[in-house]
Amino acid sequence: MQKMDYFFKPKNVAIIGASRDQTKVGHVIFRNFIEGGFKGKVFPVNVKANKILGRRCYSSVLDINERIDLAVVCIPSKVVPNVMEECGKKGVHAVIIISGGFKEVGNNELEENTRDIAKKHHMRVIGPNCLGVFDSRTGVDTIFLPRYKLERPEKGEIAFITQSGAVGSVVLDWMAKRGYKVSKFISYGNAVDVDEADLIEYLSKDDETKVICAYFEGVKEGRKFLNVSKKVTKRKPIIVLKGGTTNAGTKAVSSHTGSLAGSFEIYTAAFRQSGIIQADNMEEIFDFARTLSKQPLPKGRHVQIITDGGGFGVLLADEIIKNGLELAEMSKESIERMRKEMPPYVVLKNPIDLTGDADTEMYRRVLESAISDRNVDMIGLIVLLQVPRLGGDVVETVINAFKSSNKPIFVISAGGEYTEVLKKSLEDFGVPTFSYPESAARSMKILYDFAQKNKANK
Amino acid sequence: MQKMDYFFKPKNVAIIGASRDQTKVGHVIFRNFIEGGFKGKVFPVNVKANKILGRRCYSSVLDINERIDLAVVCIPSKVVPNVMEECGKKGVHAVIIISGGFKEVGNNELEENTRDIAKKHHMRVIGPNCLGVFDSRTGVDTIFLPRYKLERPEKGEIAFITQSGAVGSVVLDWMAKRGYKVSKFISYGNAVDVDEADLIEYLSKDDETKVICAYFEGVKEGRKFLNVSKKVTKRKPIIVLKGGTTNAGTKAVSSHTGSLAGSFEIYTAAFRQSGIIQADNMEEIFDFARTLSKQPLPKGRHVQIITDGGGFGVLLADEIIKNGLELAEMSKESIERMRKEMPPYVVLKNPIDLTGDADTEMYRRVLESAISDRNVDMIGLIVLLQVPRLGGDVVETVINAFKSSNKPIFVISAGGEYTEVLKKSLEDFGVPTFSYPESAARSMKILYDFAQKNKANK
Repeated sequence: MQKMDYFFKPKNVAIIGASRDQTKVGHVIFRNFIEGGFKGKVFPVNVKANKILGRRCYSSVLDINERIDLAVVCIPSKVVPNVMEECGKKGVHAVIIISGGFKEVGNNELEENTRDIAKKHHMRVIGPNCLGVFDSRTGVDTIFLPRYKLERPEKGEIAFITQSGAVGSVVLDWMAKRGYKVSKFISYGNAVDVDEADLIEYLSKDDETKVICAYFEGVKEGRKFLNVSKKVTKRKPIIVLKGGTTNAGTKAVSSHTGSLAGSFEIYTAAFRQSGIIQADNMEEIFDFARTLSKQPLPKGRHVQIITDGGGFGVLLADEIIKNGLELAEMSKESIERMRKEMPPYVVLKNPIDLTGDADTEMYRRVLESAISDRNVDMIGLIVLLQVPRLGGDVVETVINAFKSSNKPIFVISAGGEYTEVLKKSLEDFGVPTFSYPESAARSMKILYDFAQKNKANK
Repeated sequence: MQKMDYFFKPKNVAIIGASRDQTKVGHVIFRNFIEGGFKGKVFPVNVKANKILGRRCYSSVLDINERIDLAVVCIPSKVVPNVMEECGKKGVHAVIIISGGFKEVGNNELEENTRDIAKKHHMRVIGPNCLGVFDSRTGVDTIFLPRYKLERPEKGEIAFITQSGAVGSVVLDWMAKRGYKVSKFISYGNAVDVDEADLIEYLSKDDETKVICAYFEGVKEGRKFLNVSKKVTKRKPIIVLKGGTTNAGTKAVSSHTGSLAGSFEIYTAAFRQSGIIQADNMEEIFDFARTLSKQPLPKGRHVQIITDGGGFGVLLADEIIKNGLELAEMSKESIERMRKEMPPYVVLKNPIDLTGDADTEMYRRVLESAISDRNVDMIGLIVLLQVPRLGGDVVETVINAFKSSNKPIFVISAGGEYTEVLKKSLEDFGVPTFSYPESAARSMKILYDFAQKNKANK
């Protein structure tokens, strides 16, 4: 095992600052390990308590008789160096410092000090001033926000790293609600040791992660970050949302993290050079990530639209063209076959408009035709579930088509509770869904570009 | 009463094509009137049935002994002219033709014929090939999609008119789910008689409607539309999403409605001339509409950001600048007062960063300061509900601030179920909420522009 592994798959964990007080960070984190899916051993450390949640509590990590792989530190910042020395003596491999009160409030010396102690003892450190780690498979969960306020997503193939804890907490909560799935989540805060480049490198070798997503306002070491990214994007997509893209935003960054945000233009150029996909907002990160982790690569840029609502088909056609893609023209044979199978009112052009009389069987047949048609590279599948003859079983048809297709299928569906429930079951079966034509078309374009780059690299 | 009123507040309604078969359009519509909030009388008309849902059924509208204000027609297209003649003889004022099978499938003659009969008898007609009308106050509801699949929004101040039934059905369902409220909804389909201009003119005089929203792919009579819009936008905002903005989209339109979409550039220029606000997508329509119907007008372009998450503050600052607005600089007195009231870690710049330790009382105080500060024109209020010390009572504080403020407050909050529930209660109390910094900033810009235009008009 390399040192970084201990953040994600430790056997024995110490929670330094574990607390009996339910409103305390140290309580919530300790409880996460006990009540979540964590399989290893957890040791609460607190000078003032004998027992926490029925477990024996230790006054120092040095009092624990077993080896400790990972220490989670949630105590006032000024006592962090002492505790770090103890962790070093104990032979702890990795430390997550949740506590704030370091560089971000001007305590630069305290932060330097912490870094030096970590170096001396060869410990890797995530934080300080962060949420830490959520690993959906091993159950490591240092997120100090209770689950009723912040849901945890299920296990999947998208990793997310974030400088901002606030952005991180919203993202986790929001992924859970929509049924988006995560492999590893890391909020790394001030990055006293482990930085975005280290995490990207680590995640590039993580078999459970197919796509790496990041939010940050600035990177710690530009050259290191670019070198790592350039190497990684050859194998795995990296998607970045950069905060602080204007002067005002940059000023906001400096009063918020104390780090320099740097010019947006320089970042954009550097991202492009190193093959990083830039997202414009939070929704895009996950639209792109789900697309890249779930869809097969398209051979070309021709999209066939299938819809049960004319207006939605029109909007999608617009967006496809705006994104530099093209509408497919299906072969004569496909059209003739569908003509025989479909009611006369169905429009067999592009979009194929099944109209508000669409049923599941009609969707099944046109999907079959589009998947097998040589002129079609991608499918934009609009399924408005409000129409009267369309039953919930269309979900199964879409899942089957998606699983059997070697062409990407972009499912678009929007509406109220009924629609959201059915969309979530599509997500559960690994089918990415979109609410709007524009977001689907943007993701088609990203996937097409990625496929082209992939071809060129071969 | 003018003729158009009969679509929205009829006393007696005939459902021609009412059916006992639950899967039929005529059944769902009849049931809507009986089980919804409609206060008037409803008469089912169907040659083949004696009773429907326990009510006496008539074989013709002519057999009904009372006068009929509104007839809703859902029968095969080829028999529509006959029924229209009967409606004319009966003295019906308004007819909604739900049935498709007219111009959109090439039956131009049938459509002309229908128009002629309506003219002859001085009847106003909405449709054919449409969903018709949903009036949240009177309970008129001709939407033939069952409520479990398509929820109905509560009564509010936003009117929505749509050429596309598909777009309309999604919009209604989606508004209901998010707690957005509607005054009148009209899907007008082929517009054989009543067109977008007629509806806009009517809604401009409707006291229940504060903002008029529209989706269409083309307008029927360009000059009439522009003249009406130019007049109306002086009093009420009109927001339009135009489908068919590219050649491919335009081609899709013509196979879908048979109408010409026209060049997007021409439309954009015409919209600008007549004061119409153009939305780029469906979410924007309602972001703009809720903003314009609920917010006071700002005096200037200076925005104060208040946040409990640094990263979100950064993203909002970026978006404010990108939209041509500016960050406010609060007065020394305000800053000094807040400095005394706030814990030392709170950053009192712009953004004001309450950090993840924010509580309701801190929000209350900084809101008070920002509302009363002369340098602040608008407030961008980021409330990430995941942070540990922030209780659900922050919702009440936000509502109170919103109600008492003469400055617009844009609330931004994102997350999972817990957050969504609290956001919906904000919407219920008339506070528009946003999920992302970019959508809030776009709406600030629209509101600022509207306020400037308003000033110039005075």
